[in-house]
Amino acid sequence: MSLESFFAPKSVAVVGASRQKGKVGYEILVNMISSGFEGKIWPVNRSTDSVEGLKCYPDLTSIGETPELVIVIVPAKFVLGVMEECATIGTKAVIIITAGFKEIGEEGKKLEDEVVRVARRSGIRIIGPNCLGVTVTASKLNASFGGDLPDVGGIGYLSQSGALLAAILDIAKANGIGFSSLFSIGNKADVDELDLIEALAKDPNTTVIAGYLENIKDGNAFVHAAEQISHEKPILLMKSGGTSAGAKAASSHTGSLAGSEVAYEAMFTRAGIIRCESITEQFDFAQAFANQPLPKGPGVVVLTNAGGAGIMAADAIEREGLTFAKLSPATIEKLKTKLPAAANFHNPVDVLGDALADRYEFALDVLLDDPSVETVLVLLTPQAMTEAQETAEAIARVSRLKPDKPILACFMGASKVEEGVKVFREAKIPQYESPEDAVATIKAMADYVRWRARPKRVVRLFPVNRRKVESIIERHLRHGAREIGESESKEILEAYGFATPSGSIATTADQAANIAEQLGYPVVLKIWSPDIVHKSDVGGVKIGLKSAQEVKDAFDLMMYRIPKKVPDAHILGVLVQEMCASGREVILGMHRDPHFGPLMMFGMGGVMVEVLKDVAFYLAPLTGDEARQMLVNTKTYQLLKGVRGQEGVDIEAIAEGLQRLSQLVTEFPQIQEMDINPYVVGLPGTTPIAVDARISVEK
Amino acid sequence: MSLESFFAPKSVAVVGASRQKGKVGYEILVNMISSGFEGKIWPVNRSTDSVEGLKCYPDLTSIGETPELVIVIVPAKFVLGVMEECATIGTKAVIIITAGFKEIGEEGKKLEDEVVRVARRSGIRIIGPNCLGVTVTASKLNASFGGDLPDVGGIGYLSQSGALLAAILDIAKANGIGFSSLFSIGNKADVDELDLIEALAKDPNTTVIAGYLENIKDGNAFVHAAEQISHEKPILLMKSGGTSAGAKAASSHTGSLAGSEVAYEAMFTRAGIIRCESITEQFDFAQAFANQPLPKGPGVVVLTNAGGAGIMAADAIEREGLTFAKLSPATIEKLKTKLPAAANFHNPVDVLGDALADRYEFALDVLLDDPSVETVLVLLTPQAMTEAQETAEAIARVSRLKPDKPILACFMGASKVEEGVKVFREAKIPQYESPEDAVATIKAMADYVRWRARPKRVVRLFPVNRRKVESIIERHLRHGAREIGESESKEILEAYGFATPSGSIATTADQAANIAEQLGYPVVLKIWSPDIVHKSDVGGVKIGLKSAQEVKDAFDLMMYRIPKKVPDAHILGVLVQEMCASGREVILGMHRDPHFGPLMMFGMGGVMVEVLKDVAFYLAPLTGDEARQMLVNTKTYQLLKGVRGQEGVDIEAIAEGLQRLSQLVTEFPQIQEMDINPYVVGLPGTTPIAVDARISVEK
Repeated sequence: MSLESFFAPKSVAVVGASRQKGKVGYEILVNMISSGFEGKIWPVNRSTDSVEGLKCYPDLTSIGETPELVIVIVPAKFVLGVMEECATIGTKAVIIITAGFKEIGEEGKKLEDEVVRVARRSGIRIIGPNCLGVTVTASKLNASFGGDLPDVGGIGYLSQSGALLAAILDIAKANGIGFSSLFSIGNKADVDELDLIEALAKDPNTTVIAGYLENIKDGNAFVHAAEQISHEKPILLMKSGGTSAGAKAASSHTGSLAGSEVAYEAMFTRAGIIRCESITEQFDFAQAFANQPLPKGPGVVVLTNAGGAGIMAADAIEREGLTFAKLSPATIEKLKTKLPAAANFHNPVDVLGDALADRYEFALDVLLDDPSVETVLVLLTPQAMTEAQETAEAIARVSRLKPDKPILACFMGASKVEEGVKVFREAKIPQYESPEDAVATIKAMADYVRWRARPKRVVRLFPVNRRKVESIIERHLRHGAREIGESESKEILEAYGFATPSGSIATTADQAANIAEQLGYPVVLKIWSPDIVHKSDVGGVKIGLKSAQEVKDAFDLMMYRIPKKVPDAHILGVLVQEMCASGREVILGMHRDPHFGPLMMFGMGGVMVEVLKDVAFYLAPLTGDEARQMLVNTKTYQLLKGVRGQEGVDIEAIAEGLQRLSQLVTEFPQIQEMDINPYVVGLPGTTPIAVDARISVEK
Repeated sequence: MSLESFFAPKSVAVVGASRQKGKVGYEILVNMISSGFEGKIWPVNRSTDSVEGLKCYPDLTSIGETPELVIVIVPAKFVLGVMEECATIGTKAVIIITAGFKEIGEEGKKLEDEVVRVARRSGIRIIGPNCLGVTVTASKLNASFGGDLPDVGGIGYLSQSGALLAAILDIAKANGIGFSSLFSIGNKADVDELDLIEALAKDPNTTVIAGYLENIKDGNAFVHAAEQISHEKPILLMKSGGTSAGAKAASSHTGSLAGSEVAYEAMFTRAGIIRCESITEQFDFAQAFANQPLPKGPGVVVLTNAGGAGIMAADAIEREGLTFAKLSPATIEKLKTKLPAAANFHNPVDVLGDALADRYEFALDVLLDDPSVETVLVLLTPQAMTEAQETAEAIARVSRLKPDKPILACFMGASKVEEGVKVFREAKIPQYESPEDAVATIKAMADYVRWRARPKRVVRLFPVNRRKVESIIERHLRHGAREIGESESKEILEAYGFATPSGSIATTADQAANIAEQLGYPVVLKIWSPDIVHKSDVGGVKIGLKSAQEVKDAFDLMMYRIPKKVPDAHILGVLVQEMCASGREVILGMHRDPHFGPLMMFGMGGVMVEVLKDVAFYLAPLTGDEARQMLVNTKTYQLLKGVRGQEGVDIEAIAEGLQRLSQLVTEFPQIQEMDINPYVVGLPGTTPIAVDARISVEK
């Protein structure tokens, strides 16, 4: 069912409306009335006849009509009764403000489940319980106790914390930031973040979706929906509670490196969601996304009346990795025609401390025509002759005439620039406290534009032997085994097109030498026993054997020594394996995140992953571009490409390995964690070898 | 001469005082008068008799008394005349507001030099030219056109940009931030940042020194003074113009990695200066440093009425590497006596959304007694029942009773928390826009405390053969040679106690084999020719030779092949050298920064330095602690300590190598750049070998 009734109901009943000032039931009713809501409002309260001049009904049924939306404020123990009544009269949308449900523990959780059962049975949608309510400016609906109706604007907001929403509303009011709607989602018993971003995506009054979340209910569905929506409307999210969640004990490299924070980051990247670190930053970004066009690219020009401020902006532009626009000779010539000779005609363009509004107006107009300029950042400090208000008016004028490129302003100061800031609010030109904040916003816009322009996602499907893997996994699960052993791991890898080292099991020294002769030297010997997990620890691995004699000696030594060390081990023989050609050792891995599913990892092997944790994550299934991007995202990518004359390795082959692994773990949700380590990659054109793998499965 | 006359002059002459509103000469005079300055004020202007009710003098001499401070606002061409007059009447302190000097080019520079000459001759100190002036709240001196006298407070501010100072004053006014004094230092023709931080260090009204700088005149003197001052008063600096200055072409690894930004960072670290990234951040920090005690350590507790806000703060605390205070059982028991059962008694302590002032007061009081709590961060969001003002008053009350631990507040919102914020201003409790800003401030305080507690700097002096090095360097400089060759570099290293590989030059194959026999195998052969710099490129290096035969073969092959490749090279023979025992290869380096002198570098060799640029810098001379800290500051430090069962190397030996290098480059300022690369370090107790070095010298 659509959430339309929460956005623009024709009638609203307030169950628990109160005459007593200060009570939530009073505040909400007053907010409903004073916001100018044009539909019908029916207060419901058993113990009074009228509230605030409106006739009050003892219960919903007595109204005689069906309210499209019901707001519930009565104590928790009465909520179930109200829900039953809603079901009876046919109301399909309910906001439950009341607290005392899941958030107080087991008993509350039971009550909440009951409430949801009634809703599901009757096709009712619920927002809450334990929330601040809903505010929609277009329909003048203020069904909340968060404060007055906010200014009208393009931001649709959802918050998992009612307390924060109160602060957000207050800050927004003071800064003239407008909303299409605000949703306090409380315990998310029914309507959750996914329902709301989908509803906001369709809402014609919302141009930017913003929110504060502490968790996501259905990660997989959320990422898919968000990815679609991000193409149309930017999604700006604060997500907290990340860092403290320590990574749980995990058996694989990938598992130990992939905390829930990493999964959220991967989800944001995949879905094009813009992450904000604080409320201030979120408003900084939202203002610009809501009121300015998107830039065509990362090229920024700074226009200033103070050298120092210009340098600060330039530093920030460089730090953020944006482009410092290089003005064309024609632009510079044009600037010279009207600016004083002492001005700076290159980026940052300095119109000097005695600049009045006219210099800003002229320079801005010229700069907007320069092809290298994709965003203009206008700085001003209040000096002796500065006209803050007139300058802001001039900027607004130019912005109206040339609306195609984003213009951001940073008038530094307070009372001396106040009038200018007011002009910007009217003109919908975002104004920032510091050049750094403005530049961070430009960076967020440029990143979003790049995300939107990325190629269409096409996941390549490789021909594989799926049945083979199925039978191995099934057999393990039937026997309750979680870890898949070396030889069957190898079979799984081969079934998905990975090359593994050749080799066979020998039971005598002569047989070992024969196998070695066939493989060609050098070879590796590994003890073969289901009871020995850490082969090296018992002297069960010998590498670099170069002749039949060395192989025989190594075989006999293992057979003589190992039974003494681990008398109970059942020894099946010795694996004789080819040595891998030299190459870079990398790790391909997967950790199945409980919320977002298979999280792929790529990292350089050895020291890089152990000490530097130089790894990149991405959600499966991977496209070729995404696989390549994972490599690029590691700090040591240059090593793969080759540095200082050293030859590079086959990058495309690593990307293909990642895609094959992605296919494997997507097709087998039973695989919980997996490392291919090391994955040895040689020169371009050679076949990488998956030397070893750990695979753990679960039903 | 002290700068006392700029802080509290008994009399001030305003040369260029004007009757015309809007002119700087008018603004400054009015500011002087209206600020309530209690000394004498003498306007000087040839063309008028009185200004603003004060008698006006045609020139300084006609005043008949000697003004202690003269403010100069006349056009640039008249400034020299005024200076001569000051010299005649004996004024020792002059502020030159006038622009049109060095900043406009060659001609202005000449004029400025003239002005400085007069000043030096007559013992006059100058602030400016091209500045906004000076403001000192204690003496009610507003000798500036930056605006009204600011609020009184502990921050002493100096700014290289007058335009920024205007914005700073305006922002400070709006936020109730108080200053002891503000100095616009303009072109720094005479008084510079060093003079001012020294003066502010002595000023009893200044508790925090803050400033905006674009460059530093005498880096070496500045770092030494700042280091002393930081022990007494925190120095908070914004430094801009860093990133754009690309590293100049350099012949050494160290040189190419050490940009001017790196040198500034090293200087800040050494001197304990707290770097601020924006004006907002600087005020965030300054408020807390000026008005709160320093924390004893990094332990933070969060007190909140909103779970979401608490989580945001907790995330930030973890990100910044601060400690999340673990409350004692006694504290938790005490909290339970008065807080509702649903409250959270662990950090972050949540007094719940319906908390009134009393719960905050009680909880804060209890938390301040907990030994693990070193800083308290109080958060509040404006919910239905919240009492922002009363809560702020309660916090202020507790803070007065228990003033030993810093308390920072973040009341989130605007109009709804306004009254609380006003209370905080009065009570000198710093208030922040977001939890993240507050936590960044706590981090800055904790870092400063750690810096102050660091052990006393003791630079160890090793017995060395200084004369030997002197003679080598002298000889090179006499011949105009910039690079010191391999064999003499080795002599220099040995003279400073570095072990280098043994070896000798052979001119025949047999001789080579003989040397090898004496050294023991394996050995390395290197072609020996002043004309061949890149030996490997011509096949002039052969490593791992294991027998006399291999040595002879390698010798003969070099002698046969190399003359064909480089026919003009004068070949002196072949160097037969011992192979270094295996170990980690690291780089020890030095780059002489034009401002701050020898900048020491430590980095892991090979890939680490080439790709990851995993290096640490520090200013020489190094103490043992600093040398060890350089190692710790690299990402790959764990490799040196040993990871996953791999043995570590002799860390103390690397630190000693750095100290010896530090001594060498400190004693020989002629050394411009130097790399010891590789410096091969083995197990603890073994002697590291300085295998190769590049040293470049200059007069």
